[in-house]
Amino acid sequence: MSDFFKGIDRLAYNPGSDGLAFQHYNPDEVVMGKRLEDHLRFAVAYWHSFAWPGGDPFGGQTFDRPWFGESMEAARLKADVAFEMFDLLQVPYFCFHDADIRPEGATFVESLRNFEEIIDIFEAKMETSKTKLLWGTANLFSHRRFMSGAATNPDPDVFAWSAATIKTCMDATHRLGGENYVLWGGREGYETLLNTDLSRELEQMGRMLAMVVDYKHKIGFKGAILIEPKPQEPTKHQYDYDVATVYGNLKRFGLEKEVQVNIEQGHAILAGHSFEHEIATANALGIFGSIDMNRNDYQSGWDTDQFPNNVPEVALAYYEILKGGGFTSGGTNFDAKLRRQSLDAVDLIAAHAGAMDTCARGLKAAAAMLEDGSLEDARRARYAGWDTPKAQKMLTSDLATIAAQFEADDIKPEPVSGRQEVLENIVNRFV
Amino acid sequence: MSDFFKGIDRLAYNPGSDGLAFQHYNPDEVVMGKRLEDHLRFAVAYWHSFAWPGGDPFGGQTFDRPWFGESMEAARLKADVAFEMFDLLQVPYFCFHDADIRPEGATFVESLRNFEEIIDIFEAKMETSKTKLLWGTANLFSHRRFMSGAATNPDPDVFAWSAATIKTCMDATHRLGGENYVLWGGREGYETLLNTDLSRELEQMGRMLAMVVDYKHKIGFKGAILIEPKPQEPTKHQYDYDVATVYGNLKRFGLEKEVQVNIEQGHAILAGHSFEHEIATANALGIFGSIDMNRNDYQSGWDTDQFPNNVPEVALAYYEILKGGGFTSGGTNFDAKLRRQSLDAVDLIAAHAGAMDTCARGLKAAAAMLEDGSLEDARRARYAGWDTPKAQKMLTSDLATIAAQFEADDIKPEPVSGRQEVLENIVNRFV
Amino acid sequence: MSDFFKGIDRLAYNPGSDGLAFQHYNPDEVVMGKRLEDHLRFAVAYWHSFAWPGGDPFGGQTFDRPWFGESMEAARLKADVAFEMFDLLQVPYFCFHDADIRPEGATFVESLRNFEEIIDIFEAKMETSKTKLLWGTANLFSHRRFMSGAATNPDPDVFAWSAATIKTCMDATHRLGGENYVLWGGREGYETLLNTDLSRELEQMGRMLAMVVDYKHKIGFKGAILIEPKPQEPTKHQYDYDVATVYGNLKRFGLEKEVQVNIEQGHAILAGHSFEHEIATANALGIFGSIDMNRNDYQSGWDTDQFPNNVPEVALAYYEILKGGGFTSGGTNFDAKLRRQSLDAVDLIAAHAGAMDTCARGLKAAAAMLEDGSLEDARRARYAGWDTPKAQKMLTSDLATIAAQFEADDIKPEPVSGRQEVLENIVNRFV
Amino acid sequence: MSDFFKGIDRLAYNPGSDGLAFQHYNPDEVVMGKRLEDHLRFAVAYWHSFAWPGGDPFGGQTFDRPWFGESMEAARLKADVAFEMFDLLQVPYFCFHDADIRPEGATFVESLRNFEEIIDIFEAKMETSKTKLLWGTANLFSHRRFMSGAATNPDPDVFAWSAATIKTCMDATHRLGGENYVLWGGREGYETLLNTDLSRELEQMGRMLAMVVDYKHKIGFKGAILIEPKPQEPTKHQYDYDVATVYGNLKRFGLEKEVQVNIEQGHAILAGHSFEHEIATANALGIFGSIDMNRNDYQSGWDTDQFPNNVPEVALAYYEILKGGGFTSGGTNFDAKLRRQSLDAVDLIAAHAGAMDTCARGLKAAAAMLEDGSLEDARRARYAGWDTPKAQKMLTSDLATIAAQFEADDIKPEPVSGRQEVLENIVNRFV
Ligand SMILES: [Co+2]
Ligand SMILES: [Co+2]
Ligand SMILES: [Co+2]
Ligand SMILES: [Co+2]
Ligand SMILES: [Co+2]
Ligand SMILES: [Co+2]
Ligand SMILES: [Co+2]
Ligand SMILES: [Co+2]
Repeated sequence: MSDFFKGIDRLAYNPGSDGLAFQHYNPDEVVMGKRLEDHLRFAVAYWHSFAWPGGDPFGGQTFDRPWFGESMEAARLKADVAFEMFDLLQVPYFCFHDADIRPEGATFVESLRNFEEIIDIFEAKMETSKTKLLWGTANLFSHRRFMSGAATNPDPDVFAWSAATIKTCMDATHRLGGENYVLWGGREGYETLLNTDLSRELEQMGRMLAMVVDYKHKIGFKGAILIEPKPQEPTKHQYDYDVATVYGNLKRFGLEKEVQVNIEQGHAILAGHSFEHEIATANALGIFGSIDMNRNDYQSGWDTDQFPNNVPEVALAYYEILKGGGFTSGGTNFDAKLRRQSLDAVDLIAAHAGAMDTCARGLKAAAAMLEDGSLEDARRARYAGWDTPKAQKMLTSDLATIAAQFEADDIKPEPVSGRQEVLENIVNRFV
Repeated sequence: MSDFFKGIDRLAYNPGSDGLAFQHYNPDEVVMGKRLEDHLRFAVAYWHSFAWPGGDPFGGQTFDRPWFGESMEAARLKADVAFEMFDLLQVPYFCFHDADIRPEGATFVESLRNFEEIIDIFEAKMETSKTKLLWGTANLFSHRRFMSGAATNPDPDVFAWSAATIKTCMDATHRLGGENYVLWGGREGYETLLNTDLSRELEQMGRMLAMVVDYKHKIGFKGAILIEPKPQEPTKHQYDYDVATVYGNLKRFGLEKEVQVNIEQGHAILAGHSFEHEIATANALGIFGSIDMNRNDYQSGWDTDQFPNNVPEVALAYYEILKGGGFTSGGTNFDAKLRRQSLDAVDLIAAHAGAMDTCARGLKAAAAMLEDGSLEDARRARYAGWDTPKAQKMLTSDLATIAAQFEADDIKPEPVSGRQEVLENIVNRFV
Repeated sequence: MSDFFKGIDRLAYNPGSDGLAFQHYNPDEVVMGKRLEDHLRFAVAYWHSFAWPGGDPFGGQTFDRPWFGESMEAARLKADVAFEMFDLLQVPYFCFHDADIRPEGATFVESLRNFEEIIDIFEAKMETSKTKLLWGTANLFSHRRFMSGAATNPDPDVFAWSAATIKTCMDATHRLGGENYVLWGGREGYETLLNTDLSRELEQMGRMLAMVVDYKHKIGFKGAILIEPKPQEPTKHQYDYDVATVYGNLKRFGLEKEVQVNIEQGHAILAGHSFEHEIATANALGIFGSIDMNRNDYQSGWDTDQFPNNVPEVALAYYEILKGGGFTSGGTNFDAKLRRQSLDAVDLIAAHAGAMDTCARGLKAAAAMLEDGSLEDARRARYAGWDTPKAQKMLTSDLATIAAQFEADDIKPEPVSGRQEVLENIVNRFV
Repeated sequence: MSDFFKGIDRLAYNPGSDGLAFQHYNPDEVVMGKRLEDHLRFAVAYWHSFAWPGGDPFGGQTFDRPWFGESMEAARLKADVAFEMFDLLQVPYFCFHDADIRPEGATFVESLRNFEEIIDIFEAKMETSKTKLLWGTANLFSHRRFMSGAATNPDPDVFAWSAATIKTCMDATHRLGGENYVLWGGREGYETLLNTDLSRELEQMGRMLAMVVDYKHKIGFKGAILIEPKPQEPTKHQYDYDVATVYGNLKRFGLEKEVQVNIEQGHAILAGHSFEHEIATANALGIFGSIDMNRNDYQSGWDTDQFPNNVPEVALAYYEILKGGGFTSGGTNFDAKLRRQSLDAVDLIAAHAGAMDTCARGLKAAAAMLEDGSLEDARRARYAGWDTPKAQKMLTSDLATIAAQFEADDIKPEPVSGRQEVLENIVNRFV
């Protein structure tokens, strides 16, 4: 037992409490026939919570963590603290990259040995912990070897390094019973078109993805393969720009049945979308997988990865998720970091507790809106004109026939109110 | 002969002239084996040049054009002035929407009759004019009947109206020998997800597009069908967000061989891309068609549709176009409007002349960069590592094999400079 | 009595009601010793509610109002409907521009006569209405004569027109007992620096403002003179960019004691600020006056002027207002327009009712946070180190003395957590 | 002589050369009566060129510089390489922060000793180098002690540390003959209003600035004190938001005659302005000082600090500078960093050479536009109406008098074309 969280007890559901407690998140509360814990499927992100030093573009480390430093001893302490926090929060899941959990070695093989040693430790801890693995992933963006891409690198050796790394991370995820495997292409993109062969790089990316899918089947991994879209940052342009772009890539490579998306609120914002738009799009295209729940600052043009705190926004996101049937293998991963001035252990716990409460309120509001039915009734009514056989037949007709009929009928369509403010008022009765 | 352009003569190529003349655009200059006119394929946009009254969100009409007003007489005067300007500029092409050229009638049929009368006039004028039709299109966004969509409207009667309108515009385009037909879905999107059935609307859009393609073949129209992407404005979200999104939609509906894109600089910017990015993406995906050349103000968050005036930017766009083989059916349409304070006829001519010069400089610089070869040499060299059989073989291998080989080889890839500033310096030698 | 609102009754405070009613806004509820109505001081904006036709950059009028058209008869009907709505909503205030309420005449004098006739009507109606005038203002941006500025126009005749118009609007505001007079410089800015004499235009603007202040004193108007900042749109750059910029202009012209600001949420966003930032800045600089409450869409780069609907955001704004002592002459003006698809009378009422409820919830939450005191306790504690005499003395010392002392003391400051997530959790207990 | 730049010779003006040479920058070329070198006054920024490791938010160090590491030996090597580069480029100036040039010590005094030792080295090198100091500055933002502000910190000890640091940096700047001293308040702002006493922090900032001005006079430093505006990043909001905001702060504290601004292109963009806007505003307000020349990517929402490469943009900036009389104590500092993939020494040289050429082209174009006179003639003509005694008299009149006169005269102002496209065409004849 480390003393990092000394004086902090396991959090309980205790509405009205002044201390560290859940005000809204009661894991056992049943909503729409399912426990809240099973709806929300919260996961802690290892990287931001335990590996991020608090830097920003104009300043370095602000956090003083006893486990900082590139040694196996530090990595083991980090693992201890991580599982202690999982226990305090009673989260059902966590997520990690290889680079979050082990020190970089001098060679690929040494890094791999370090990694596997920590995976052994995780495996042991998970025997007694309630916290399972939502997903694993490979960090193919931090080290300078990836500066020009991983799968899309001009150097085939980096492609090979990336392939080998993904394999080891898929192996580890499989071994730990992970429910998904995620790919985020932070360097799969370009800084300038002037030095980039776009066509070739897209092909390389497609090939790597196909190999990932093949390997999943080969090892019998039953989890989902997820791509996390992001438009830019770190690169000027990333190939997995947003959900619609990922869908196009998947269709191009014939992988749209094999791969789904892990949607992050902050990345949706950067791409010019709302979070709920990205979720609704993924549902419409049949590729919704999981979410990285966080929040970007609307006044900043970069990825701030804050903890979520605006209930009405979160409610609209869960509304789309519930409307689509809820999570299957996916969950709510807090890809969120403390503000760099939030130095203390208590900040880390409070940030997660506040975020979990925000999500619980959001999901309960979303469920209430669905059960109330007013929104869906209004939506159905708006399209009711399409329910006639004549309207349906027109959809499989042709321009000339429709035009002839239309001119004959001499129809003059009358606009109908879209009722946006009324619908927003309905939402506000639940949030 | 109207007297709108009184005192303005046909523009000539006359470098160094102080008056209205082309400083850089000599249509007969041969670049890379082709006349500049045949490379650039300039088109005047009827709407901005002749139908836009100079309004903005906080003010109404500033332009006092003698042809403003909803009458056939006004429409005929407008056509006269338009063809007079085509002659002054000696542009090879123009483009139009139905609503630009005719007054709205009380009924669909009356509007159609007005439209066809103007098409007759166009046909007559085009017998003696050098100016041909680059593309026609239907305005399915200005009238209040389209406020909730055209193909994606909740009311099937609006779908029918839209289908019938597209048919008539395709007929007219075909009759005038248009080289393309364009679809811009300004209202195909949503204002709020709360009242929108995303899935259903995407299906409707796909159906309409399929009908357009069928009708093209039915009437023997040989031109290209083009979609113009735009992320938002007028709606909060438009379904044809950007080139990659359009590609995904086309793949979904099996139309990627039948439809291409008409890319606008301003829309690229709004979607978070550079113009050259959108062109390069379309080339990589095999759907490049044509361009709407204009410029958005980088300090504004809306579609300002200014005339292009920054040669280095324009050069990078034409570089991607030339690299992809240049235009076939497409061209350079000036989807650009005067600033609303530019009240005079001379402003309209000067804006086009300046834009044509800017494009001519850009294209000539792009051609010189290609002929010089330094940029393409550097690009090829950057990926040379992939030319080995071993590297190529890896692309069709699998993760386990690559990993095993990689660990055996004990390779440590060394990062190589991306040379971005050096490449930018090369560009600056040509612009 | 017009029949525009037929079937809609005066709204009551009726929590839980399904129909048109206030769920949260009880005007008589006492919060922090004051009635909610007296805290919030709601005002309806005449322009968006009664004069805006539903246009956007790609489409024209969607609303079919019986009072549309440029006649005095229409203007009188519009006035009837407006006061009927004030009554239905029981709002204590309204606001107007000259151009909202009267038809434009053929000459200045004719417009003025039209204006004064409507002011007479307002005066009569206000004798029996509970609704008073929060502020009046002049529309110096819609007509083409203002396209290059009002006070900052290159043509002195437009300056004169603007001065004369402001005089008449101040007269009318004074006569109707208005509590403020507002200036919004929608055309006081530029489209391009290339044709602009920035220095001269700033001087002209300063002169006009000084004349406004003089005239206020001359006629004995006791209300506040307010400037509404906005960074851009309609012009590329507006001189009253944001609160801090307005403050600099006021200081420059020695008017910082005479003029305050009317802060709009949407304009704050466009300038890269949060609404609460602009309010806090105005309070810190002593120039806070009033607010235009609305909401911009964060995914759009233009001024959407939606009705407010996010309670947590609104609560933070009112928190800054209450912390500064609340409104004196100012109030909460809904400078908000329906979405252009919200065609019906009921939409107009529902939008206001929803907005009033949102504001009531926000203000009540803000008051509760202040009364709870946790946030202010934490803020005070954070700066407690400055309360020592030594620290205070340092502020009036000099660099050399501080440096000498500092080196002698050999102090090493230790960073302290900023507690942002904890504070955000506190806020979430009240919203 | 280090071997970092081995094989690279001093750059010469050699148009048409393929190698490392100036294509456009001939320091001795005389433009408007002054040598180009004396117009442009180029400075190399020590931090980006020698201290920046190539990190971004998702990746660490990419550059392998032999002088990286926190030792005095490394700092001395860095100084050698820096002055070697100054010599290769023959730049007349450089700029530095304390933290760029010396290793951080365990205490304030140890850091100071390290700093002074390097200043000694600089002093010695500058005896034989042609490169002088444009400005010095203190880094009060990177170290975690400044995470909550420097002058605006809630902890008075950090205020003291900052004051003592500024003193030592002003001393060093004075000793090395620096021509300006710069303040950039990267942490003078806030992350959340919830924990911030805005009013108190603004006061603290004003006090520190007053002390800086006093100390300047006390030690007889004849250079200018400059503030560098930036709206945000690192903090969510910075108090020195833009030029207009800085002006307001200066007026508030009575320092507008004592302090000027150092304007950065990238910061102008982030604040929603063009670079030329910020320069023109500073000229109009009498506070123009110097520039940080770089370029931000318009598709990114953060401060990319690229080297300038767009001549038309740069020309407009220098046009405003020349129109204002050119630099006095200020100059053109390249606050620009290599892209993180540009690993080699040659990239560093090429980036500066390309930037210097870009600026030289821009300045020569700006001078030619001024000498041609067309732009200024058009500007003067636009405001000619204000030259009459009647117009001038109106500016010192009052609303009532103007209104009475105006109604009597029955004037109807006629809009006049703003000619924006024509003016842009004129610019394009020079760039
Ligand atoms: Co994420
Ligand atoms: Co993120
Ligand atoms: Co277009
Ligand atoms: Co456009
Ligand atoms: Co407003
Ligand atoms: Co607004
Ligand atoms: Co700078
Ligand atoms: Co910068």
